[in-house]
Amino acid sequence: MEHYLDNSATTQVYPQVAEKVLQLMTEKYGNPSSLHSKGMEAEEELIKARHVIAKSLGAEDNEIYFTSGGTEANNLAVFGTAMALKRRGNKIVTTAVEHSSVYEAMKELEAQGFRVCYIEPESDGNFTEEQFRQEIDKDTILVSLMAVNNEIGAILPFDKISKIIKDKGAPALLHCDCVQAYCKIPLKPKKLGIDLATISAHKIHGPKGVGGLFVKQGVRILPQHFGGEQESKIRPGTEPLPLIAGFGEAVRITDIQKNNEIVKALNSYAKDRLSKIQGVTINSPKNALDYIINVSVQGIRSETMLHFLEDSVVYVSSGSACAKGKPSHVLQAMKMNRDLADSALRISFSAHNTKDDIDALCNGIETGLKILVRR
Amino acid sequence: MEHYLDNSATTQVYPQVAEKVLQLMTEKYGNPSSLHSKGMEAEEELIKARHVIAKSLGAEDNEIYFTSGGTEANNLAVFGTAMALKRRGNKIVTTAVEHSSVYEAMKELEAQGFRVCYIEPESDGNFTEEQFRQEIDKDTILVSLMAVNNEIGAILPFDKISKIIKDKGAPALLHCDCVQAYCKIPLKPKKLGIDLATISAHKIHGPKGVGGLFVKQGVRILPQHFGGEQESKIRPGTEPLPLIAGFGEAVRITDIQKNNEIVKALNSYAKDRLSKIQGVTINSPKNALDYIINVSVQGIRSETMLHFLEDSVVYVSSGSACAKGKPSHVLQAMKMNRDLADSALRISFSAHNTKDDIDALCNGIETGLKILVRR
Repeated sequence: MEHYLDNSATTQVYPQVAEKVLQLMTEKYGNPSSLHSKGMEAEEELIKARHVIAKSLGAEDNEIYFTSGGTEANNLAVFGTAMALKRRGNKIVTTAVEHSSVYEAMKELEAQGFRVCYIEPESDGNFTEEQFRQEIDKDTILVSLMAVNNEIGAILPFDKISKIIKDKGAPALLHCDCVQAYCKIPLKPKKLGIDLATISAHKIHGPKGVGGLFVKQGVRILPQHFGGEQESKIRPGTEPLPLIAGFGEAVRITDIQKNNEIVKALNSYAKDRLSKIQGVTINSPKNALDYIINVSVQGIRSETMLHFLEDSVVYVSSGSACAKGKPSHVLQAMKMNRDLADSALRISFSAHNTKDDIDALCNGIETGLKILVRR
Repeated sequence: MEHYLDNSATTQVYPQVAEKVLQLMTEKYGNPSSLHSKGMEAEEELIKARHVIAKSLGAEDNEIYFTSGGTEANNLAVFGTAMALKRRGNKIVTTAVEHSSVYEAMKELEAQGFRVCYIEPESDGNFTEEQFRQEIDKDTILVSLMAVNNEIGAILPFDKISKIIKDKGAPALLHCDCVQAYCKIPLKPKKLGIDLATISAHKIHGPKGVGGLFVKQGVRILPQHFGGEQESKIRPGTEPLPLIAGFGEAVRITDIQKNNEIVKALNSYAKDRLSKIQGVTINSPKNALDYIINVSVQGIRSETMLHFLEDSVVYVSSGSACAKGKPSHVLQAMKMNRDLADSALRISFSAHNTKDDIDALCNGIETGLKILVRR
């Protein structure tokens, strides 16, 4: 029996989603841009999926642009805004804990001459509204912050930023990387004054290879890809329709409230068991999203414990999957002491996990502490 | 019974490919970047697929970079080269018949100050080596031409360009958009002196949403996306593993020679029947790829005929699917007279088509000529 507790890295595709993908690959396989009915039946699926996803964000259909995933959507938001607004200012405000697809994009913009301010978290991983208020000014053209941190689950004050931008008279667009929050927190970007929001399918039991960017009506960003007429030329290329339809299906069948109740119970059970294990420290802030718990296991390096847990068919992560073995920039930004950081594990839930999974994890950690520390 | 003759727009996914995609979505669903065995079993599939595709191009595994499709790969090649070599020259040589993902990228580079030369085809749609020799000079940093034109099937002199670049002492990289040629013509980029080659899965019965760029070892282009460590940072983002594995499977089961024999026979049968229909002109050059026949049906607008053929469940295209209704820039570049261009249809085969499909098409055109012209 498999205990997959790495759902923030990626998830198993729902059977209904897989079936949808299969149908679109083998039956409704037309190119949505084709003028004949084989193309039109494909286009109908595109329209349906876009509508489901738009609705889930309280958005209009034409505010959703499909991309190849979260990385591309984040890149499009960051570069698309910087290029569109570079004449109106030179400053960009972000955080030191963003996903690499925002972080590395910012580094590139710095190399191009933009001034980027990376706000650091408090020691518990949280951010305050005040930190953003201090940095956003009239020269700021973009504020980009994630809704939920992918390594520790901290919820950022993304709902407070739009007012600050307005108060300061900044020309900034507000971009929110919602990859870890989407379909977990009810998100209505327009109500929150968010101009751009990144979402991804494979974190919510949808297929890999598709994501999207919400772009508020009237907001103009510059495309980063050039080609055909697809996605209003903001993101050209033949639409990966099976993936898009699968994405739509995953969103359609997700019951956020029900899932959250399940995950809240799992989280509380896990924290209860973990806190009883001597040598385990919980690194996630108290008010973090229930889907993610970051812990450190005293004296055992992350990768050692991770591989030890595999013997019990328990899968967790040593931080972000995208960083593959590098020290976590998130824990560094929290100024966590090196020993704790080097022994950090990310446990991430889906509503399909069970207490059994948590028992297997905790038993594994307990045994590991006995066996591995001695070595 | 369906007669799908629009295989250059997109193809039906092979059952074995669909099964592979399904397996990777629901069983081996790990993130290849994850350090645990669930990630590693996914990574193994990534390695296998990369190897199959590399081998099909006579390339090394580390010369293949997966992208979200042909558009992204073309953009990466064009912008990646221009940005990497902009200090060594300012001229780019391409053709007037490229796919929009090259053509529009070139327009963007022109806006950024590059000098782009668009070589026009002869009136039959063919190009000569000499045309390229006249334009490539010491200031040329990129030559980008497609191997096979997507609308008329013309085969471009892509195998002759590397020598010209050398003869002229140009610092240029040679990029070849092989989307319509891949798995149809045996292509070994390195033997042909091609530095960059674009391929796509969904034109060869693989899944939509994945393509690739061959980048010759030692050739340096600049990434256009920024993020994680995937694809040697040339193309970050969680790998869409089900698609990549499906792509590999499609390539693995494709028997180029066998397919070509089938399609050659279909092409010859179709040309034979079409040439007997009064009012039908064949626009493709005589030496075009057998997979594509472009014809004009006198006096009947492309879209009218296309929709009429749908009544017989025959699917063809009025040009490139990506241009959706716009007049074809390819036929314009050939200086085709307006009446012919306005009545052009693209018929595109797969080895899974039959003579029945061609009979249904030709019968449809014959009936159409009787009914539609009178109206």
